[in-house]
This record gives sequence, structure tokens and C-alpha cells, in this order.
Amino acid sequence: MQTKHLVNSDRLWKSLMDMAKIGATEKGGVCRLALTDLDRDARDLFVKWCKEAGCTITIDQMGNVFARRAGKDNSLAPVVTGSHIDSQPTGGKFDGVYGVLAGLEVIRSLNDAKVETLRPIEASIWTNEEGSRFAPAMISSGIFGGAFELEYGLNRPDLDGKTMGEELKRIGYAGKEPVGGRPFHAFFEAHIEQGPILEHDKKTIGIVQGGLGQRWMEVTMTGVESHAGPTPMRIRKDAMVGAAHVITAVNKIGHSYPHACATVGLVQCSPNSRNTIPGKVFFTIDLRHNEDEVLTKMAQEAKAAAEKAAKENGLELDYKEIWYLPPVKFSADCVQAVANAASELGFSHMPIISGAGHDSFYINRVAPAAMVFVPCDGGISHNEIENATQEDIAAGCSVLMRAMIERANSL
Amino acid sequence: MQTKHLVNSDRLWKSLMDMAKIGATEKGGVCRLALTDLDRDARDLFVKWCKEAGCTITIDQMGNVFARRAGKDNSLAPVVTGSHIDSQPTGGKFDGVYGVLAGLEVIRSLNDAKVETLRPIEASIWTNEEGSRFAPAMISSGIFGGAFELEYGLNRPDLDGKTMGEELKRIGYAGKEPVGGRPFHAFFEAHIEQGPILEHDKKTIGIVQGGLGQRWMEVTMTGVESHAGPTPMRIRKDAMVGAAHVITAVNKIGHSYPHACATVGLVQCSPNSRNTIPGKVFFTIDLRHNEDEVLTKMAQEAKAAAEKAAKENGLELDYKEIWYLPPVKFSADCVQAVANAASELGFSHMPIISGAGHDSFYINRVAPAAMVFVPCDGGISHNEIENATQEDIAAGCSVLMRAMIERANSL
Repeated sequence: MQTKHLVNSDRLWKSLMDMAKIGATEKGGVCRLALTDLDRDARDLFVKWCKEAGCTITIDQMGNVFARRAGKDNSLAPVVTGSHIDSQPTGGKFDGVYGVLAGLEVIRSLNDAKVETLRPIEASIWTNEEGSRFAPAMISSGIFGGAFELEYGLNRPDLDGKTMGEELKRIGYAGKEPVGGRPFHAFFEAHIEQGPILEHDKKTIGIVQGGLGQRWMEVTMTGVESHAGPTPMRIRKDAMVGAAHVITAVNKIGHSYPHACATVGLVQCSPNSRNTIPGKVFFTIDLRHNEDEVLTKMAQEAKAAAEKAAKENGLELDYKEIWYLPPVKFSADCVQAVANAASELGFSHMPIISGAGHDSFYINRVAPAAMVFVPCDGGISHNEIENATQEDIAAGCSVLMRAMIERANSL
Repeated sequence: MQTKHLVNSDRLWKSLMDMAKIGATEKGGVCRLALTDLDRDARDLFVKWCKEAGCTITIDQMGNVFARRAGKDNSLAPVVTGSHIDSQPTGGKFDGVYGVLAGLEVIRSLNDAKVETLRPIEASIWTNEEGSRFAPAMISSGIFGGAFELEYGLNRPDLDGKTMGEELKRIGYAGKEPVGGRPFHAFFEAHIEQGPILEHDKKTIGIVQGGLGQRWMEVTMTGVESHAGPTPMRIRKDAMVGAAHVITAVNKIGHSYPHACATVGLVQCSPNSRNTIPGKVFFTIDLRHNEDEVLTKMAQEAKAAAEKAAKENGLELDYKEIWYLPPVKFSADCVQAVANAASELGFSHMPIISGAGHDSFYINRVAPAAMVFVPCDGGISHNEIENATQEDIAAGCSVLMRAMIERANSL
């Protein structure tokens, strides 16, 4: 254990807290939606820090940012790490940005220790991972991994109709580099677990084996908006009543299969007036399972529930599946590198499956990938009170560094 | 029948169509929310037309506008008509504004026919009848009728926190006149039915006897927002799932009593992101019935349903009744004047109960009041496709004029 590399815990924590000021919310969280001015400010700060650490910066056409620390042989494919710096509307200080700044801390720590790796090391930012402002999530790593076309990504609109392409130009992060085709020798992503398992089992490190498959739906139910007083109940076509039936059914589907997740997170009621019967409701469905067959069955049941609710309430139904992500299995080599690092550094650890989607899911399609999880308080994420300990955050970064060094010194 | 007064149908229709340009929507409706710039523009046009018809204008502290045509004895209390010119977010061309412009047309027709009435005649606008921007509805006629205090009205906030008092000043309609205390000899309001009964029964005129009682609630359910992937179903506190149960229950309450109406028209889901479990949902409940006892029972059931849904889903519940309007019974004299007018003019007619609330409900508390209904297409209102025929619109206005003349010549 003579080469036990540990990162600078205080510096990493301070960088996280400094970055969390950009988009800070009153309740201690962060609101930094993709491609807003705040996203640009956070990118600018990361780029500045990376340049100070001696890195060269490359930006691709989806605004993905790569900060490279040179290796002994720069003709070899790099070992890359990273995550995202966009957040949910009421997000926390760690989701995504931890993986980005852990990458920076690996580079800073290698500089401090004057360690030279055979291959170059890169820290990266992936644009619009959250999918809050532009759907679907993980769009830019998805293009990198060949799941979507570049044009599709650039044309994704937010709810106001602004596209990712327009907004990338506006904030100055529409790079020249093609998206994808950059060979990675390995990709690692450090992240808070965003679930309660590590905390419950009292483990510091989660060795992520893969992730849940996901199916995302967009549903519009259309009835007839009319006055809430003089319109008799029996002739109403109330879109919100139809939507409520589907929301209840989706929740029931989530409860009927072990390890399943089913969520209606976004609901837009129209015209949204107290004394008008809702004429139109738009809502989303997010279904997840680690077995593809079960996921398919869940999707069939959700669609059937929407069709039934539409029929029973006299509504028109527009039901679209907008995204399908098959269950993910990470690279055995990379998973082993993470497991080795955790063991050798003496951190308690366990294998785990990711319930959330992550950029590494898509990157895994074109390069060997794996993830490092650390616990978060109460398993709560996508919430302003999201929290993690400095100790766990540093432990995950040390595991990340050691795994990266192992892969960066391999041919 | 020698004094059979009929209004100028074409002129009334043209005024309605001209007014409908202010806030016109693509689908042929109107969006003219209370105390917006568009509301001001519509008020300005009405005031201009009234001045051209020789009226004097008075504006009170809630922005209610009174346009007076002098009578033979101006020391006598006037006979007043009117309604509102604010609209729903996706409202129609007739709801409210018909009653305002019918008042103007009565004045214009009396001018044309050189008829002098004993008492003065007034046409009026009542501020924020809809309750879409500022809750509750009918706030300004409510203050006039003694149901609310002036301060309460001026402090009503919209969803952005702007108050009615601020917005009245901003658009220049914060008048000096006290709200209420103006004696009316009688008050009449012409309105489209906003329901399907007159059309179904093939009657031109509805002689409105009174209106449904109403109870309005504001409900907030609070759970824990968290990531939709890694958060197991069994530990979730999903506020939207709780709200969906209440929406379903409220609909069921509406169906369980004859003539009942029960509506959830406004739903705000927070943080409203596809892959975050909703942590908070705010929604409204609108309950109506013509029997006070049944209305009370409906309200008890709705509250019990919310308490049950909160408990079953681990949610905090904030449940407030923000408005109670008892069932309304109009003045026998005024109702009789409308019935006489419809009979004498030879229009088919029937007694009817109003499902919607109207300014005359509150004015009825301090002055004898009644209403004239005309049919609207398919009974649809609070919808951009709301429609009525020119013939019916003119018929209602002729009935209004005749009823007003009868009361204006009575001591």
C-alpha cells in the first residue's frame, strides 16, 4: 500500500461550496438549469480552475467540456472522468457537480504529488444531464454515445420554445469539436448515491455495477374547458380528473413490482383557473426497472391506464414515449478498478445498481465505464436539502483517483 | 303594448365585437385578466363610449365604474345595470362584458328614443369578477355588498404577489368614491347563461331566481421532493399522488348529489420536474349547491378526503376555506320586472337558477337585484369558443331595458 494516493479533502470541499454559490437558493440548495446564465457562470469557473491547474480545454458542439492533463504518451486515449453541473429547479449542492469537481481534484492532487501518468487524464462537463429544462435527460452524453443525432440534440426545446442550439450559442459554449468519436481508454463518474442504500448499509463506497432501464412518456389529455358553476357534472369533460386517474394508476404500477420506480413529476393544468373545468392537462411519466421485460410490462400498463381514463372521462389522449434507456451493465474492467481502489484504500464498500440515470450510462456504449457512489443524507437528492459528509466526498474522490491512475497506466 | 322598446341589435353586436378585440386570442376568445393593461384599455373604451352617450362617470376605490344617464329627478336613487369586463385566461367574448355593454346599449337606445325616465339610469363595471387573477371572485361587488372589507380587497395578491390596490393605481382606476353606500333603487344584470339549460329547453330568456351557494378551498399538500430513480416507492412522500386522490374524491362528491358541482380547476405541482418526486402541490376546490345544508356536507366530505389522502401518503396538509357564498335569492320585485318584460315583449322564457356566481349576488344584499339570462352555444363558457346569437343577445338587452324602465319610473 505504498502508493496510497489520497486527495486534498478541504480543497475539494471548498471548491464544491464555492461552486454552490452559483445559483444558490434560500434553502441551501442550487437552481442552475442547463444553458442558463448561471450554467455559463459555473462552466466559466470550472474552466478557470482547470486552466490554473495546467489543463488544456476542448469544447464540443453540444457544449461538453474536456479539461486535459497531459500524460507521458499523449498519443494514447485518455482516461476521463466527469459528470454535469446543471441542476434540478430545486436541486442540491452535490448532484453532478461533485463528479466534475472530483475530476478537477484528481488533477490538482496529481499535480501536488508530481505524479505523471502514462495516458492523459481528463475532467469533463456533460451538458443538460438533468433533463429538467430540455428533455430528455443525458442528451449530450447520449449523442456522444451514439444514442441520438446531433441535430436532435441541438433542436431540443425548453417549455418556452428556446432550443439547446440557440442557448449554447447565447452562453458561448457552442464548441467546434464533433460530439463523440473521441476515444476514451476508460470513463469514471463519481456521484452521490441519491438513494438510501449505502447509508442504510453503512458503507462509504458503492461499486456501481450498472443502472435501471428507463422509459419516459409525455401525455396530453384534452377535454372541454367550461364554467365550473353552470356545467352539470354529467356532461363535463374534465382533463384534470382524467389525469388524476392516471397519476394514481402510475403510482400503483410502481408499487406492484419489486425494485420498480414510477413517477409523475411534471403536471401542467390548463387554463389553471379556480372556477374553470380544466380543458387540457399535460404531464410526464417516468418508469424505471433493472429488468427490461418488467419495464416493458410497466409501460404497457401505464398506457392502458391512460387509455381507460381518457375513455371514461370523454377525453382525447395524446400519449408518446419520448425516451427509452435500456438497463445498463458497466465495463467489468472499470468496475474492477473501482473495487480494487476501494479495497486497497480500506474503505467499506458494496456493489450497487444506480436508480438514477447518469452520463456514464451512455458513455459506456462507446468506452469502458464505471461509477463510484458515496452516501447522501437520508438518500435525499433532487432537493435543496441534499447533503453529504466531507469525509465521504473525499473518500469517493480518492477511490476515483486510484482507479483512474490504474487505468491511465495500463496499455 | 304601445311602448314596446327594442334596442339596436346591430349596434350592440358591433360594440361587443369591437370590445372583444382587446385581449383577443387566436381561437376567437378573450384573455383580459383583471387590472392588466388590457383591462385598462377595455375600461377606457367603455368610458369613452359612455361619455359620447352623454353620461357622467364615477369611479370608486375598488375601480368599480358607474356611468350615469340623468333622470327627471336626480335626487332619487338610480336603477343600475352592469357586470364585469375582466375575463378568464382563456375566456369568451360574452361572459361579463355582455352585461356591461347591454347597459350602454340601454342608455344609447333611450337616447335614440328620447325617453326620459323618472330616476337616473346607470351602467356599471365591477372589478375582478372572475377571480382568476385575484381570489376570491366578485371581490369588488362583494365589498359593495358588505361581504368584505375594503382593506381586504385592496390587499388581495395575484400569484406574483402584486395586490389589487397596487394594480388599480398602476392602471389609473383607483377612484376616490367610497365602495358601497350608493343607494340603488334596483340592480339588473344581463348575462349569458354559461350552462346548457335554456338551449336545451329552447327558451330565449332565463328569469333568474337566485344562485348556487359556493365554498372555495385552497389546499397545499407537502411531502418530500426526491430523485425519481433511486428513491424506493415505499419511502416516498409524493405530494402529487396525494393531490390526485383528492381530485378524484372531489369529482366523486360532485357526482353524489343532484345539482351539485365540484371542481379542482387550479393545480400547481412543485418543483414540476419530470424526474423529481413532487414535494409540494397547491390546488383549489370549488364546491356549489343550491341548498346550504348539502353544500356544508360536500365541504365536510372534501376535507375528510384531503385528510385521508395526506395521512395515507405521509403528507403535511394545509387546508383552508377561503370563500363562502350562501345560496342567493333575488328580489321578488326585480324578478317580476324581468318576467313582465319578457312576457310583454313576447320572448319565450323560463325561471332558472344561476350555477355561476355573479356581481348581482352581492349587490342583492344591499339593493333589490335580479338577472336576465340568454342562451349560449352548447352551454359552454369560460372557453374561447363561448358563443351566443346576435338575436338572443339583443332579446336579453331589450328585456333588460324594459325591466329597467319599469323600475326607473317607479317610486
